[in-house]
Amino acid sequence: MSVLSNGLRVATETVPGARSVSVGVWVGVGSVDETPNLAGASHYLEHVLFKGTRSRTGAQISEAIDAVGGELNAFTAHEYTCYYARVLAAEAALAVDIVCDVVLDAVVAAQDVDLERSVILEEIAMRDDDPEDTLGDAFAAAVFPGHPVGDPVIGSVASISGMSRGQVAGWYRRRYQPERMVVAVAGGVEHGDVVRWVRAAFAGRGDLADSGVARFPALARTGPARTRRRTGTAGAPAGGLSVVHRDIEQAHLCLGVRALPRTHPDRAALEVLATAVGGGMSSRLFRRVREERGLAYSCYAGTSSYADVGSFSVYAGCSPDNLAEVSTVIGAELADVVAGGLTDDEIRRAKGQLTGSIILGLEDPESRMSRIGRTLLVRPDYRTLDTQLADIDAVTAQQVAAVAGTLLGGPLAATVVGPYRDARRLPAGLTRLVG
Amino acid sequence: MSVLSNGLRVATETVPGARSVSVGVWVGVGSVDETPNLAGASHYLEHVLFKGTRSRTGAQISEAIDAVGGELNAFTAHEYTCYYARVLAAEAALAVDIVCDVVLDAVVAAQDVDLERSVILEEIAMRDDDPEDTLGDAFAAAVFPGHPVGDPVIGSVASISGMSRGQVAGWYRRRYQPERMVVAVAGGVEHGDVVRWVRAAFAGRGDLADSGVARFPALARTGPARTRRRTGTAGAPAGGLSVVHRDIEQAHLCLGVRALPRTHPDRAALEVLATAVGGGMSSRLFRRVREERGLAYSCYAGTSSYADVGSFSVYAGCSPDNLAEVSTVIGAELADVVAGGLTDDEIRRAKGQLTGSIILGLEDPESRMSRIGRTLLVRPDYRTLDTQLADIDAVTAQQVAAVAGTLLGGPLAATVVGPYRDARRLPAGLTRLVG
Repeated sequence: MSVLSNGLRVATETVPGARSVSVGVWVGVGSVDETPNLAGASHYLEHVLFKGTRSRTGAQISEAIDAVGGELNAFTAHEYTCYYARVLAAEAALAVDIVCDVVLDAVVAAQDVDLERSVILEEIAMRDDDPEDTLGDAFAAAVFPGHPVGDPVIGSVASISGMSRGQVAGWYRRRYQPERMVVAVAGGVEHGDVVRWVRAAFAGRGDLADSGVARFPALARTGPARTRRRTGTAGAPAGGLSVVHRDIEQAHLCLGVRALPRTHPDRAALEVLATAVGGGMSSRLFRRVREERGLAYSCYAGTSSYADVGSFSVYAGCSPDNLAEVSTVIGAELADVVAGGLTDDEIRRAKGQLTGSIILGLEDPESRMSRIGRTLLVRPDYRTLDTQLADIDAVTAQQVAAVAGTLLGGPLAATVVGPYRDARRLPAGLTRLVG
Repeated sequence: MSVLSNGLRVATETVPGARSVSVGVWVGVGSVDETPNLAGASHYLEHVLFKGTRSRTGAQISEAIDAVGGELNAFTAHEYTCYYARVLAAEAALAVDIVCDVVLDAVVAAQDVDLERSVILEEIAMRDDDPEDTLGDAFAAAVFPGHPVGDPVIGSVASISGMSRGQVAGWYRRRYQPERMVVAVAGGVEHGDVVRWVRAAFAGRGDLADSGVARFPALARTGPARTRRRTGTAGAPAGGLSVVHRDIEQAHLCLGVRALPRTHPDRAALEVLATAVGGGMSSRLFRRVREERGLAYSCYAGTSSYADVGSFSVYAGCSPDNLAEVSTVIGAELADVVAGGLTDDEIRRAKGQLTGSIILGLEDPESRMSRIGRTLLVRPDYRTLDTQLADIDAVTAQQVAAVAGTLLGGPLAATVVGPYRDARRLPAGLTRLVG
């Protein structure tokens, strides 16, 4: 890795034999940084930047990437925004140039802000028509009340409808600074070439001397920039029971608790717990809910983690006729883990599953680029793959039992999306799990 | 590639540097082979095979793969079923053993057939709650009336509810024969080892001598096994206008025609056409509908192809308020292509995009395994990547114009999923496009 003297970090992973190159510009700006009237500004901006730069129209940007068979896209999360391209190795310099141009030099014209307003309102309607997406946003609001990760990245119809060109452009000007960015590149390239291309793309944006320091600077995110009322602590009851009515055939359930932030020392134990409880085909919930009872097509557990908070949750989608039994089975399994922990066999299998899936997940340049970029941006200390795997290997049954007891011993938050007008129509077995 | 003397084909692609191995057993059985009372039997069977074999319970199968961090899954399509695993290279022999065991030696117990019946009925409900999945199945029915690719792979509530253990087991016994299968493996493995593992897994199933013939046998699918009334020819009007009512915020539109089967000489020209019309960010429809007018979040064109039929279609998801304008814009662009073909620049860019995306799509072992397995199973002649790319490169503007004229010059079939009780509520601009 290199750190240019304007604060920009450039990290490369050369993948021998790779025919492709993935280029990502990661910007440490996301929805947690937004004030309420700017809700969705980071995502809105992500859309608008593709509409044209001082040297290329939107059409020219698309045509240049399409002509070489590449992909150019972006996504916005709570804590960061990533712009990326994937191209054949011979086109890597072009990809770096275009992605940097989009990120650094967009025009943000009033007309384009208005056009993208319509597109984003369509995207919100899509989210509302997708039961699982709706559930994800509603559960986040329930489990993180008052915390910015509880708000949707996309914003709301009201915030998007009301946001001006000046607000969007101001967000861009203030937030998109080199010291808040990481350029991550992986595939069939060499670091020296990448640094050269990046310096050319950033020319004129402050001192670009390569400090050559392969250390990791201190600007990684350690907490949301936005200050807001915070409620709840790990494992505490959060939003209780919430219902979003949709006239659909299935009921979609998310049950869970506020859990651990990204760098918490018990994160690895929590991952082992979530994997054994509902991380794969041999997990408890998949066996009990789907394989032994045929109650649902999908049932799984997972975690989220951010700088200062996180969650543990269980998802199931099932017929409303089965919701009572599904809730009871999930509740019983969670209670069983709290009371008795996991067996040694479950812990061994969960560790194997986590380790294997992390390594298998890094088989292509794109995933390696993502790992580098995200890790540099969000962690105060860069954690290598070996460290990550060693942390998993070191987890003990006692740690897992302790985490389960702390997090899952109390009432849960629950959100249901389905054919229910209000929470009183939900089965008692579900209501009992919620404090 | 090797052909064992029981007819089984075994094909390996060694990927230097790959840490993973992908193993797929591709079976030439799919929904096009099913009679109406067996509708969904291939997919149903795919579920049931994971419930246990003569030597492993369902739980043991899942635990063995989870313990090494692998993935084990399957999918069913109209013309084939694929069972696959993805593991670290050191576990490749285990993966071959397990996938072959599942495919060859499942018990198909009555109790498991009943359990999976519930799971599949949940899966049908999920499809019904997903507007785009619903649209895909409804459009296929509209554009392929009377042809088996017009029927959903998953079957219907009626066919799944009524299917007996004997019917599912009979489908398995009759259809899962070695000469109808391809074992495809890609990643950090050698072909000799793969053949050895496969022969061990198939032991006792007929003569297993490796014929050593690196040629491609003739059993590839050239048409659906099921005979049914066939209607329509390429470009002809198919099912007219159909509507599926859903109480949702967006309207989802699919417009298109019956087009070309997989091996038709004009397939490459059709791909170039679809790419230029709606295949990427610089395509006509993406520019006109989203970038210039902000009418939709998604708008794209695509093709499907099977042994004896295919389709060309355009998708858009938009607010009902925008459906009239979206339909008019799509209709005008298609008419413009019919009248004037594509520019040289569009053709050059579409070729670059197709070529690049094919190569980029083969960067990981899993996609290479899929390419080998599917190609061997569905094409009468194995087509190499070089041949595929050369076919694209050879496409001329005249060929594209001819294909556009033949396929898109007449009325289209259209399907809408959205808040419409019947087709009379749809905008006139859309109705006019349908014959």
